[in-house]
Amino acid sequence: MELFGFGPHLMLDGYDANPEKLRDAELVRRVLDELPEEMEMTKVLPPFVYSYGPGGEDGVTGVVIIAESHIAIHTFPKKRFLSIDIFSCKAFDMSKALKKLAEVFEIGRYETYMIQRGKEFPKDPELARQIVLGEREYLEARVG
Amino acid sequence: MELFGFGPHLMLDGYDANPEKLRDAELVRRVLDELPEEMEMTKVLPPFVYSYGPGGEDGVTGVVIIAESHIAIHTFPKKRFLSIDIFSCKAFDMSKALKKLAEVFEIGRYETYMIQRGKEFPKDPELARQIVLGEREYLEARVG
Repeated sequence: MELFGFGPHLMLDGYDANPEKLRDAELVRRVLDELPEEMEMTKVLPPFVYSYGPGGEDGVTGVVIIAESHIAIHTFPKKRFLSIDIFSCKAFDMSKALKKLAEVFEIGRYETYMIQRGKEFPKDPELARQIVLGEREYLEARVG
Repeated sequence: MELFGFGPHLMLDGYDANPEKLRDAELVRRVLDELPEEMEMTKVLPPFVYSYGPGGEDGVTGVVIIAESHIAIHTFPKKRFLSIDIFSCKAFDMSKALKKLAEVFEIGRYETYMIQRGKEFPKDPELARQIVLGEREYLEARVG
């Protein structure tokens, strides 16, 4: 029997973040560099980071490729807003990721969304188990 | 009065795609290179594309940064599966994007998801209008 599901895609949209942090391209790069290992993901390439405006005042965009999926961060310092995507082909510790990101960027409040991507993607049982645990983790993070 | 919403994030998970197309890193690069202009988005950097395995047999990952958001494609030729994200700070023609992507990769069937990101992000009225039109477009694309 085949089990299903490609993997979780966690989205965070954060408000009232610290604009200094949101302008800090080096901080965005460091988060993208460190997060994969902390989430037990495999980084494929170093992150790339792009700054808008002098000193990143209009925002910073960064992406890191992790074994066949990605993490992306887009910041908007003037709006104190940022969007983060963590899309992985295997389950990861979502509450840990949310906690770290909220702390690093000093996010005041945030919305999250989680979509289980590729509902019909065939998987092995162990990965399916991890996905179920991941969904539980997400729900715990939401209510925590 | 401020209106709200950062922008639409369209996700496509496609099955039964043509594996030759999914191995073709140059095709992925070309799609990422052309799609922003076709969607009236502003490309910030050229796409970057990474191949897994000889000739991309284990898959291709590509990302392009479009004015403060991104388009990402992850392909899995052996599973005939691919995942695509189009995340934009302004509305775009979703049915056109889905049609093009389905044709280019010869996708047999797909799931889509659309999330209106940053629900509380302050916007100007014209952008808010475009977002509403975008949501309508998405629903039309789903039923079309």
